[in-house]
Amino acid sequence: MTLLDQRVLPLSESYRQYHDAPGVADAIRQMVVRGAPAIGITAAYGVVLAARQHFANTSKTWRESLAADIKLLAQSRPTAVNLFWALERMQRVLNENTDTSVLDALLHEALAIHDEDIAANFSMGEYGAGLISGQGSVLTHCNTGSLATGGYGTALGVIRSAYRQEKITEVFADETRPWLQGARLTAWELVKDKIPVRLLAEGAAASLMRSERPGWVIVGADRIAANGDVANKIGTYSLAVLARQHGVNFMVVAPTSTVDMSIASGEDIPIEYRDEQELLQLGGNRIAAEGAHAWNPVFDVTPAGLIDAIVTERGVILQPDNDRLLKHFSE
Amino acid sequence: MTLLDQRVLPLSESYRQYHDAPGVADAIRQMVVRGAPAIGITAAYGVVLAARQHFANTSKTWRESLAADIKLLAQSRPTAVNLFWALERMQRVLNENTDTSVLDALLHEALAIHDEDIAANFSMGEYGAGLISGQGSVLTHCNTGSLATGGYGTALGVIRSAYRQEKITEVFADETRPWLQGARLTAWELVKDKIPVRLLAEGAAASLMRSERPGWVIVGADRIAANGDVANKIGTYSLAVLARQHGVNFMVVAPTSTVDMSIASGEDIPIEYRDEQELLQLGGNRIAAEGAHAWNPVFDVTPAGLIDAIVTERGVILQPDNDRLLKHFSE
Repeated sequence: MTLLDQRVLPLSESYRQYHDAPGVADAIRQMVVRGAPAIGITAAYGVVLAARQHFANTSKTWRESLAADIKLLAQSRPTAVNLFWALERMQRVLNENTDTSVLDALLHEALAIHDEDIAANFSMGEYGAGLISGQGSVLTHCNTGSLATGGYGTALGVIRSAYRQEKITEVFADETRPWLQGARLTAWELVKDKIPVRLLAEGAAASLMRSERPGWVIVGADRIAANGDVANKIGTYSLAVLARQHGVNFMVVAPTSTVDMSIASGEDIPIEYRDEQELLQLGGNRIAAEGAHAWNPVFDVTPAGLIDAIVTERGVILQPDNDRLLKHFSE
Repeated sequence: MTLLDQRVLPLSESYRQYHDAPGVADAIRQMVVRGAPAIGITAAYGVVLAARQHFANTSKTWRESLAADIKLLAQSRPTAVNLFWALERMQRVLNENTDTSVLDALLHEALAIHDEDIAANFSMGEYGAGLISGQGSVLTHCNTGSLATGGYGTALGVIRSAYRQEKITEVFADETRPWLQGARLTAWELVKDKIPVRLLAEGAAASLMRSERPGWVIVGADRIAANGDVANKIGTYSLAVLARQHGVNFMVVAPTSTVDMSIASGEDIPIEYRDEQELLQLGGNRIAAEGAHAWNPVFDVTPAGLIDAIVTERGVILQPDNDRLLKHFSE
C-alpha cells in the first residue's frame, strides 16, 4: 500500500510503501495518514495486506496471525471511531467467508468502504451547502478534505460544494496547532481548487468572528456520541463556544461511520493525549526551555447544545440531540 | 544600548548593540524587544541615545533632529500605549530643560521610568496575589515577565508572588502563536524560577478550563481604555469568553502607564496587523501552500464586562467600568 506522507506536506510530496499491518498501524500512529475517514479506509486496506501476507506464509494459522494484526491496527489511535467501524466491517467479512474466496471478499470490502466514503462526501457536500444561505466567508479548522477522507472531504467537501454554488466568498482556516493541518493541508487543498483562503492563529478566531463575521464555522468529527456530542480536533470546542457567543452558525460534517451510537455522551469518548514533544519542539528543535512540560490533548468534545447542524450522507440533523440522532438513523 | 534578542530565545542568548534611534525603533518593530512596558522603557533609553548623538554632532539643530527621531520611535508599533506614554515623559523633560543639563535630565527620566516599572510590578504582584484564594493552577498567555517589563513582570509578577505564597500549584501557559512567546519566553522564565509550567496550544484552552479547572486566567495588557476594555496579545479575548463560560476568574495586570484615559472604549484602540509571513512561514521556511494568505492581527480587545479584576500598582479594580477606572485614578 502507498501512502502520501502528510507530515511533510506541502514542502514535499513524499510517498511511502507499506507491506504489513504493523507498518500500517505505525503510519496511522505517526500520522503519515490522518483524518477519521482516511484512517478507517487505511486500516481496511491494512487488513487486506495482512490477510494476503499471512495466508501466503502460514495458510493453517493465518486467521490467528491476522487477528493479532487487526488488534494492532485497532490500537493505533483511540479517538476516531471510523477506525473501529472499518475494522468491524472487515472482521464481519472474515467471519462470513470461510473458503479461499475470503481474500477477494476482503479486498472488495475495503474498496467498498473507500468508495462509499467518497459518495458520502459528495452527498454531505450537497446537504451542507444547502444549509448556507446568502454569501459570505466561513471558518474551518484542521483538515477535512481529500487528505482526511476517501476523497473530496467532509467539512471541506461542504465548503467545495458551497463555493461552487457561489455561497462562499472566502475560507478562513485555523492553522491548527500543533500539527498545523490547516496551514499545511487545508490551504494546500484550497489553493489547488482556486478557493481563496486566509490562515489565522487559533487565538485570532474570536476576533475574526467579531470583525469579519463569517456566516458559519464548518468542521469535521472524529466521533459523534448518541446524544450529538462531537469529538474533533483540539480547538473545535473553543470555536463552538465562540461561535455561539458571536451568533455564528456551527456545522459538523461527518459520515454516519463517525457516529458511535454505543456511546451515550461525549464524556465517554476516549481522548488521545500525544507526546508533549509536539509542543516543546519546532521543526525537530527544542523550542521551550528544558524543564518545561506540555499538556497535549489532540481532541476535544463539543456539547451537542452548541451545534446548529450535524450533516451526514443521510441528510441534516438540526439542533442535534438523542432523539434526533435516533430518528436520523431509523429513517 | 544593549538588548537581549528575544526572537531567538531560548535557543540562544544573543545580545545586540544599538547606537541610535532608528536602530532602536527597528528593534522594537522587529520584536527584538517586546512587551508593552519593556517597549516604553526601551523607547525612553532610545531618546537618551538620540539626544546624546545629535547634541554631539549638531549642537545647534540637535532638538530638531531629536524630534524626528522621537517621531520615528513613536511609529515603531501602534498598540501598546506605554510607548507613547514614555515618549511623552521624555518630551516633557526635553521641554522643561533648556540648558545643557538636559542630557542628564533625560537619562534620569529614562532610569526613573525603568525603576518605577519594576516597583509597579512588585506592587501589582502583591495586589494580584491577594485576589487569589485557596490553591490551584492558573492559565496565562503570551509573556508578561521580566522580558516584557523592567523586571519581575505584570501577570507573571502576580504569578511569581502567588506561587511564593503557595497559592499556585502549577502554571499553564498558552504557547501563543504566531511568535510563541509562551513557549519560548514564559516557560524559560518560569523554569528559571523553578515554577512548574505546562504549555498548551491555544486551541486547548477551552478543554483545559473544563478538565483542569484553573482558578484564574491572568494576563497583561497593551492598552486599557477608559471604560476598562483591554487590548492585549491576540488570543486574550478568546480566553476571556471561555473563562466566563467555564466560571474561571479573569485578571488583567498592567501598570497605570498602560491605561489610556483618552480612549473611550476598546473600539478606538489601534490594532496592529503584522506581516502574513508570520503565519505562512515556520522557521524561515514556507509552510503554507503558495497562493494561501493569512489574517494576522496581533492584538485583540477584551470587553471590560468579561474582566473580573484589573490590577495596577495602585491597587485592584473589580468589575472594571468607566466610573471605577476614574475613581482608581482619583484616589
